Amino acid sequence: MAAAAFDVIGVGNAIVDVIAQADEAFLGRNGLDKGVMTLIDADRARTLYDVMGSALEMSGGSAANTLAGLASLGGRGAYIGKVRNDQLGGVFSHDLRAIGVDYRTAAAHSGPPTARCLIFVTPDAQRTMQTYLGISVELGLADIDEQAIRDAEVTYLEGYLFDREDAKKAFVHAAEIAHAAGRKVALTLSDPFCVNRHRDAFLHLVRGHVDILFANEAEITALYQAKSFDGALQHVRGHCEIAALTRSEKGSVVVAGGELHVIDAQRVAKVVDTTGAGDLYASGFLFGLTQGRNLADCGRIGSIAAAEVIQHYGARPETSLAALVNQKGL
Amino acid sequence: MAAAAFDVIGVGNAIVDVIAQADEAFLGRNGLDKGVMTLIDADRARTLYDVMGSALEMSGGSAANTLAGLASLGGRGAYIGKVRNDQLGGVFSHDLRAIGVDYRTAAAHSGPPTARCLIFVTPDAQRTMQTYLGISVELGLADIDEQAIRDAEVTYLEGYLFDREDAKKAFVHAAEIAHAAGRKVALTLSDPFCVNRHRDAFLHLVRGHVDILFANEAEITALYQAKSFDGALQHVRGHCEIAALTRSEKGSVVVAGGELHVIDAQRVAKVVDTTGAGDLYASGFLFGLTQGRNLADCGRIGSIAAAEVIQHYGARPETSLAALVNQKGL
Repeated sequence: MAAAAFDVIGVGNAIVDVIAQADEAFLGRNGLDKGVMTLIDADRARTLYDVMGSALEMSGGSAANTLAGLASLGGRGAYIGKVRNDQLGGVFSHDLRAIGVDYRTAAAHSGPPTARCLIFVTPDAQRTMQTYLGISVELGLADIDEQAIRDAEVTYLEGYLFDREDAKKAFVHAAEIAHAAGRKVALTLSDPFCVNRHRDAFLHLVRGHVDILFANEAEITALYQAKSFDGALQHVRGHCEIAALTRSEKGSVVVAGGELHVIDAQRVAKVVDTTGAGDLYASGFLFGLTQGRNLADCGRIGSIAAAEVIQHYGARPETSLAALVNQKGL
Repeated sequence: MAAAAFDVIGVGNAIVDVIAQADEAFLGRNGLDKGVMTLIDADRARTLYDVMGSALEMSGGSAANTLAGLASLGGRGAYIGKVRNDQLGGVFSHDLRAIGVDYRTAAAHSGPPTARCLIFVTPDAQRTMQTYLGISVELGLADIDEQAIRDAEVTYLEGYLFDREDAKKAFVHAAEIAHAAGRKVALTLSDPFCVNRHRDAFLHLVRGHVDILFANEAEITALYQAKSFDGALQHVRGHCEIAALTRSEKGSVVVAGGELHVIDAQRVAKVVDTTGAGDLYASGFLFGLTQGRNLADCGRIGSIAAAEVIQHYGARPETSLAALVNQKGL
């Protein structure tokens, strides 16, 4: 097997986040399910934007956030995901390349606009996401850069892609190429509602195609329809080589066959916006893994990366994660 | 004179800010003059954006920031400034309306794109601004909503408009309408280099058309080619009804004929990004003034508003300024 040119290649929905504060009453008035990601169409996106407060725009997209975090840690990353050749597409492409990620997908010259995610942050720092997928779901088999996937130690896929049939096919195709090249495949379940929508497909994928699974407590219990976190943990042990399960302020649990680690969350002075916490945990974990670190250190680096991103608005790091990890002696 | 429908109407360049961190070496390498605003063309904007780090986008524009701050304080504001009907224009319009400002200008359906300002924030929290004015400078006489100006207690103009001849005409026209209706005209000098480019025109305007002048130390000394702040202060006393002169961490000085107030700056835990400090000082000052507060309180409210905006990235408030002012007992 040739040396990997990339530590990680991500495949995901290329999205620009539109972030505003909102209170609980606003969520209620507009029928928004707190804490989860809901898919919306162009009309609903327009209507919601009209009532949304003054916002800031920042590149997002779950896997893209993870790759941005990986780059900030010093890792070598690539990304596959689709934007239009519009202003928001320009923003997305710029931000990913500016941080050193090899962005592989050409912008589409026709079709719907670049995807956006309206993110409502409540005073408790929880985020409620309303996503208009736009052109991002037109990611198809032709966009999967097979050579880049063969060149990456880990191919990282986001569960959100399962919401569209073509993207799901591209997803499975990418996993197959990676495995054929002797590489690893990682998956994040993304969202409990996404898991509920596609449970059977996810279970099939986790059992047959995924080496490294990321999920939070709500997602992993949804996947196995388990009554408790521990119940889900016992299931996933047998299904994946490595599972990294995040539990917000309770930290994370990493399980790999007989090996099990319970990692504390990093303390932070004030949580501002939890958007991207899971994405950045995955950055740190995958960075550690591709650097040959032990699983406990992978989890700790994940926690440090997640702690940075929840202390400000937006899902991409604002400070050098490599410097933070150094400070912590890791 | 009829009761005013608006406390303040602002006229300015409608701009979306693109904000990234940069170090001093970056500024040097790219020939950027630290701390000031430089006008750039579309090509230079593209080249600079290519080397700029990962950024966040937030609505900006000096007078628009001031009106956003006024709205956050509970004031009634309107705004005149030009965007294209593109994605960034949509962002600008949305953000201003979302905070309750009556945005008066229709988006252009042809011409250059919405203006953007690339803002490089150095670790000392100073901002260096590179502005591509795009469609914003096509603001002309036809865009000046005369009735709205007559309906506003104060017409607030930004000096940046002086960089284009048509905008300058629109500017003077707005001042004349306001005065004919018995209203007040306020001006911010915006930038010392802008003052140097247009000193005679500014002096003429300040003497003949401006009731309330905002300037920082560099701008007011540039205007009068004075050797010291105090020298400039003695000049401006005779030229304007009210001058509010800001001096960063040294606070501000308000002078009105024989009346003079020295206002301390609000202490802040950490200065993150000084972009918008002057704009938000003007928000607070004009809010106080149109509420009939004394000049010392106007300056204090200005300081509170400025202190909020320098503690985070971006030039618009992230918290309710009305609540902050209440907390301070003002």
